[in-house]
Amino acid sequence: MHDLIIIGSGPAGLSAAIYASRAGLDAVVLEKAGVSGGQVLTTYEVDNYPGLPGINGFDLGMKFKEHADKLGAKFEDASVLAIRPIGEADGEDGYTVVCDGKEYETKGIIIATGAHHANLNVPGEADFQGMGVSYCATCDGAFFRGRDVAVAGGGDVALEDAIFLARVCNKVYLIHRRDEFRANKALQEAIKQYENIIPVLNSTVEEIKGSGTVNALAVKNKISGEVQDLAVSGIFIAVGIIPDSDAFKDFVDVNEKGYIIAGEDGKTSKKCIYAAGDVRAKALRQIVTAVADGANAVTSFQEDSMNN
Amino acid sequence: MHDLIIIGSGPAGLSAAIYASRAGLDAVVLEKAGVSGGQVLTTYEVDNYPGLPGINGFDLGMKFKEHADKLGAKFEDASVLAIRPIGEADGEDGYTVVCDGKEYETKGIIIATGAHHANLNVPGEADFQGMGVSYCATCDGAFFRGRDVAVAGGGDVALEDAIFLARVCNKVYLIHRRDEFRANKALQEAIKQYENIIPVLNSTVEEIKGSGTVNALAVKNKISGEVQDLAVSGIFIAVGIIPDSDAFKDFVDVNEKGYIIAGEDGKTSKKCIYAAGDVRAKALRQIVTAVADGANAVTSFQEDSMNN
Repeated sequence: MHDLIIIGSGPAGLSAAIYASRAGLDAVVLEKAGVSGGQVLTTYEVDNYPGLPGINGFDLGMKFKEHADKLGAKFEDASVLAIRPIGEADGEDGYTVVCDGKEYETKGIIIATGAHHANLNVPGEADFQGMGVSYCATCDGAFFRGRDVAVAGGGDVALEDAIFLARVCNKVYLIHRRDEFRANKALQEAIKQYENIIPVLNSTVEEIKGSGTVNALAVKNKISGEVQDLAVSGIFIAVGIIPDSDAFKDFVDVNEKGYIIAGEDGKTSKKCIYAAGDVRAKALRQIVTAVADGANAVTSFQEDSMNN
Repeated sequence: MHDLIIIGSGPAGLSAAIYASRAGLDAVVLEKAGVSGGQVLTTYEVDNYPGLPGINGFDLGMKFKEHADKLGAKFEDASVLAIRPIGEADGEDGYTVVCDGKEYETKGIIIATGAHHANLNVPGEADFQGMGVSYCATCDGAFFRGRDVAVAGGGDVALEDAIFLARVCNKVYLIHRRDEFRANKALQEAIKQYENIIPVLNSTVEEIKGSGTVNALAVKNKISGEVQDLAVSGIFIAVGIIPDSDAFKDFVDVNEKGYIIAGEDGKTSKKCIYAAGDVRAKALRQIVTAVADGANAVTSFQEDSMNN
């Protein structure tokens, strides 16, 4: 019986591994991707993790992993299918983590499986990832200072992204397929205060074009059917993110979007099961909040298991 | 009128500065200590900030500061005395941050003033400060090379201090009032590897004695009631921390220990005023949670100012 099984090894899982190792816990990190780091790995440049300015995302992921390795953290390749309580359903006797071909018995579990961005699924999107195609204005907006960019989407995140970008970029085209935004009204009013936010309604991005980096979007007007090129240096795709909670959502409480419901302390609806990082229902999904979540979850487990 | 005044430049304030700079906000960081980094500066070794294993605390503080500088963050030397609302008390028209000799007008404020070490409050403590009484092993330990010293306290910091001192001093008495240390298990195991760390449990320091400099402690055994002199050249006091909220506690709500009451989003009882880092009421005070707080506070400010 392990002390902790940590599911996922992005920043939240690796921070949890670091804290668990330093606390002398018997913890095992399960990763299904074959490589640790999570979404950070595919980020071209990270400039908002304090102390490591302008680091390549892959390098940052490796640094996190090496740090956990140095402290003796244990990692195994495993894809988790489900969690089952041992004995009574309340988790008093621990849990079985059911994987493809293997099972782990453990007192506590930290779910740090993260989330992934929804794609536009248009030509060029995959080719130019990190070279003008971004899914996170807070992360990457500052790289486009003084340039023209576009945001695809019409929800709260898309409009927030547009405002964020309007402060650093030249023009911000806000491209949405419907005839009105579905973001809250305060945000709809707020974007009107920025002359450099240009709504492009009833329109879809058909293709992302470029040469090395993005230089234009093929944008289709759904009413006229016309397709025109729009010159931009970057496109921020804000058409939703999807938490990777499928294996757990029948066992711990999730919200309407599938995020695992847990506060800052990471505590879920089940005893000694914690959510950390992007899979947790919270306001801000960033590397800094993920590493904080990992530390908080381990600390909560230590407290909860001391209080047994 | 600035967008944001960030008060304090430890990890929370510097993370806020990084996020504010990247968001294109007009932010100014006020620091009274003459140097940025906060409590990290006086930490001998930091091994739980993911990505930078085993880094010297001073170096980590400098890295954070350089990161903020690189992004164009503005810093000013200033000691904040109070916050006053401009116009109506609800902060709708912003705030004036009153400093010694200068004032700043701002839409939002992030209080990231941190916390400081508590005193033992025993005879001799004040008299011998800097003459054998220290609150920072990293800063002052080298002055006691080859001598006998004591550490008062039983938490993580006390045990970390004892380990630091054991490397340079002759004997290190680790005096704690309880029958066991409350530091994490890794540290409790670690001190056992140092033969020159001598735990003195169930004991309190009653007086710090000396002639010009410290030469002994009166130590009381709480079980026998006996008081004995312990010959040491120095004492390192590591008995807790006190939030630096004095200038704000009549303006924003604080808890019974003086920590500013704010959730994960940093929102205090006053509109557009946020608490970040060790000064905030929260479960876990670590560098990772401080940098998360800084990011959350900036993001909350952006949302609050958008929704006006």
